[in-house]
Amino acid sequence: MSNAVTLLFNPRSVAVVGASSNPAKLGSIVLRFLLDHGFANVFPVNPREGEVSGLKCYPSVKDVPGEVDLACILTPASTVPGIIRDCAEKGIKVAVIFSSGFAEAGNATLQEQVVKAARDAGVRILGPNSQGVVSTSTGLCATFSPSLMIPNTPLKGVVSVVSQSGAIGGSALTHMWSLKLGVSRFVSTGNEADLEIADFLDFLAEDEDTKVVAVFLESIKDVERFSSAAARAISNGKPVVVFWSARSQKARKLVQQHTGLNPPEDYKPLFRKLGVLSVEDFEDFFDFPMALAWQPEASGNGVAVISTSGAMCSVMVDLCEEYGLEVPELSREAEDKLRNILPSFAAPKNPLDVTGQIILNISLFKECLKVICREEKVNALLLTVTTAVDEPAVALARDIVEAAETVRSFGKPMVVCWLASRMFSRTSHEVLLEAKIPVYPTPRRAVKAIKTLVEWGKVKRWKRQGDDANVASRVKFKTT
Amino acid sequence: MSNAVTLLFNPRSVAVVGASSNPAKLGSIVLRFLLDHGFANVFPVNPREGEVSGLKCYPSVKDVPGEVDLACILTPASTVPGIIRDCAEKGIKVAVIFSSGFAEAGNATLQEQVVKAARDAGVRILGPNSQGVVSTSTGLCATFSPSLMIPNTPLKGVVSVVSQSGAIGGSALTHMWSLKLGVSRFVSTGNEADLEIADFLDFLAEDEDTKVVAVFLESIKDVERFSSAAARAISNGKPVVVFWSARSQKARKLVQQHTGLNPPEDYKPLFRKLGVLSVEDFEDFFDFPMALAWQPEASGNGVAVISTSGAMCSVMVDLCEEYGLEVPELSREAEDKLRNILPSFAAPKNPLDVTGQIILNISLFKECLKVICREEKVNALLLTVTTAVDEPAVALARDIVEAAETVRSFGKPMVVCWLASRMFSRTSHEVLLEAKIPVYPTPRRAVKAIKTLVEWGKVKRWKRQGDDANVASRVKFKTT
Repeated sequence: MSNAVTLLFNPRSVAVVGASSNPAKLGSIVLRFLLDHGFANVFPVNPREGEVSGLKCYPSVKDVPGEVDLACILTPASTVPGIIRDCAEKGIKVAVIFSSGFAEAGNATLQEQVVKAARDAGVRILGPNSQGVVSTSTGLCATFSPSLMIPNTPLKGVVSVVSQSGAIGGSALTHMWSLKLGVSRFVSTGNEADLEIADFLDFLAEDEDTKVVAVFLESIKDVERFSSAAARAISNGKPVVVFWSARSQKARKLVQQHTGLNPPEDYKPLFRKLGVLSVEDFEDFFDFPMALAWQPEASGNGVAVISTSGAMCSVMVDLCEEYGLEVPELSREAEDKLRNILPSFAAPKNPLDVTGQIILNISLFKECLKVICREEKVNALLLTVTTAVDEPAVALARDIVEAAETVRSFGKPMVVCWLASRMFSRTSHEVLLEAKIPVYPTPRRAVKAIKTLVEWGKVKRWKRQGDDANVASRVKFKTT
Repeated sequence: MSNAVTLLFNPRSVAVVGASSNPAKLGSIVLRFLLDHGFANVFPVNPREGEVSGLKCYPSVKDVPGEVDLACILTPASTVPGIIRDCAEKGIKVAVIFSSGFAEAGNATLQEQVVKAARDAGVRILGPNSQGVVSTSTGLCATFSPSLMIPNTPLKGVVSVVSQSGAIGGSALTHMWSLKLGVSRFVSTGNEADLEIADFLDFLAEDEDTKVVAVFLESIKDVERFSSAAARAISNGKPVVVFWSARSQKARKLVQQHTGLNPPEDYKPLFRKLGVLSVEDFEDFFDFPMALAWQPEASGNGVAVISTSGAMCSVMVDLCEEYGLEVPELSREAEDKLRNILPSFAAPKNPLDVTGQIILNISLFKECLKVICREEKVNALLLTVTTAVDEPAVALARDIVEAAETVRSFGKPMVVCWLASRMFSRTSHEVLLEAKIPVYPTPRRAVKAIKTLVEWGKVKRWKRQGDDANVASRVKFKTT
């Protein structure tokens, strides 16, 4: 089973069945994306085309010379069972069925025919109704997701995305690109007629190129297999973030209609038991992986809030309380030290309004952060920036990067909340992101990121203690 | 009282006390912003400068020739009482005190001296610790907020912002700029030693250039005056959106320390009673005004969800349920009509997966929207776009703009949720924003915007019926 997934991410050669010279057709897009992203060993297949994208086109996969590891199928639904049989004859072990018009469109019977053909012939399938696979470490881009249309995408990263929805998974990729977070593997599982999320979790649990797994799902095909694969990934130190939809009865009914999957359930208790970081918002789906990929976990729920705005201090304190985070008082010693560093009118407290004077003086700013990092009760730092724009914003971002080194040396995580629109200060954001400092556009998203690092810290500690019961009873992630 | 506010937004001449030729000084920035934004009648005042920004500099406001309507004061805190007395001698009726170092820094006594000097002399003051005022209709930019550093800012709009925090208000301006929403009046009230939020609400209630009021506050100085001013604005058809911080006990204690204002309370019951749209998130502070400024209110809580992704349909249904919105079934007639328009595999239901085929065919897409808009149970439309990027995204945005005209003719609001990163599809966002179609980056923010239009519809109906008790009992805005 994991052999098929390995082949899927690392094929030596790919046949594109339904390759087309009409640029509007998906069969043209998949072929072009493969070639454009540097995958050379590609064979177009289409009985009605002689040449596509400068490559000789074969009437059937059976006519392709040499071995083929992976078939991408983009032909009309009714032709797919026959093509699967052709693939088997050619010795192809795994196929991505991009074609739609199966269970998701009410044609469960046709989907069953495909599954039967595949099972009989020993071909594993991804889909149907899949948007394909991407593997940045092997340079494979077998997808038509518009998120891959931009030059330099996908960016290589350590987060892998497994999504039942190509649209949501692909949209997340655009954010992972703009956050400079990138992606390692991406797979759109579609109708999961054969290969399912569990198969990919299984693979990613052992995958050296993956540090964080982000899953979007509406329904789990096999809960037992999912659970064992997720538990293994987590035991291997990889956070599993699950963006989970169809929480309401109405949405569950809808999902049953538009997929051929099991009736979805309330998966919250399951996720808690496993230590899966369950999230309910689209933005969490890339916000949390960014924090988890770039920052160490927090060893407790104590947060130091650092700001140059008094009002932002109270906004953050409100949110920390809402998410069960502490904003602990500083020790007498720390207060005394801060009093010597800060201007006379600033209070040496947590939350700490460091004032504009300090944040613009890098050596004093670093001194402040050192004092704070030494506090035992402080497990994570939350830095807020408000209206800085343009050149001063870039200078500030560079200072934050330098100061972040200090924080990193204490093994404590830090995230930044940058309130001004990114359209105003693109370069400053890039400076932070390139230094792997997670930056969030709103107070809530920054606080939720800290909360995730705290929850992940808990899961890791309990996993180390082999205390699964504790994981079950204690990890309660509140996302809203 | 309102005379002072009128002068503040519409001065014929401004003196900048503490004007400086050192570009790093706030006294230089305020002067430059005034001049750069086209306000010509400006007089720098500073006994230690001969000329600033090419203008003759006067030793005291008393030396400025002719009448001065407004003084901007940027000198050290201790000098401010004397300068206020100078202003009075000059006949100046209102002054903005930008200087800090008063109640917010523990110097309540000095602030009292300023208030006394002002009261004795009949000068009204904004601040101290204010970031100033902006009025796009009169071309006044008397502020040092970095949000005004970008060319073409501030953009003229119909939303006015009153903020106790210059940092939060200024950051919101950057978003209002990038959303092409713009601003009408902006005022940073600072410590509110004299002029307070109520004074500005009072003015804005009657202000022709203001359609929506957005307020950030931690504490209300005079609850009775606030209530009467807010009620008047709302009765005049202007939604009042209040982003309210210091909800937790800990944050309230903090606010008491960093301002000289009344101890903040739980204002939720008050806001409900008034029909104020109370929000808890920074992004709501511009997201809601965008919806309220550009779209009609919803006359009920029925939402049609239109998408090209099945998964997005279930995400939206979950969120609608969370916010108490209905996703009503369509009538038999509407279903029949949609069946004739949609491809055979698409279900003519709400939520409606219109499929890529329809959304790319503008005349069919408009036909769909017409059918939906004719449904009585549908009060608002929520359109979701997922991964479209680049040129296809721009083409799609143009189609949405055309289709939105159809929706507008039915008097029903429509908002768009665009999942792909704006960094991927800037032009497409601009096409929508220029056509005054609110577009949100996440499902939750789009659903919250619809919810606000529903709540505002309720408030307006009850205000029309003069049924204030109903407003009190029924309007419950849940933001998270």
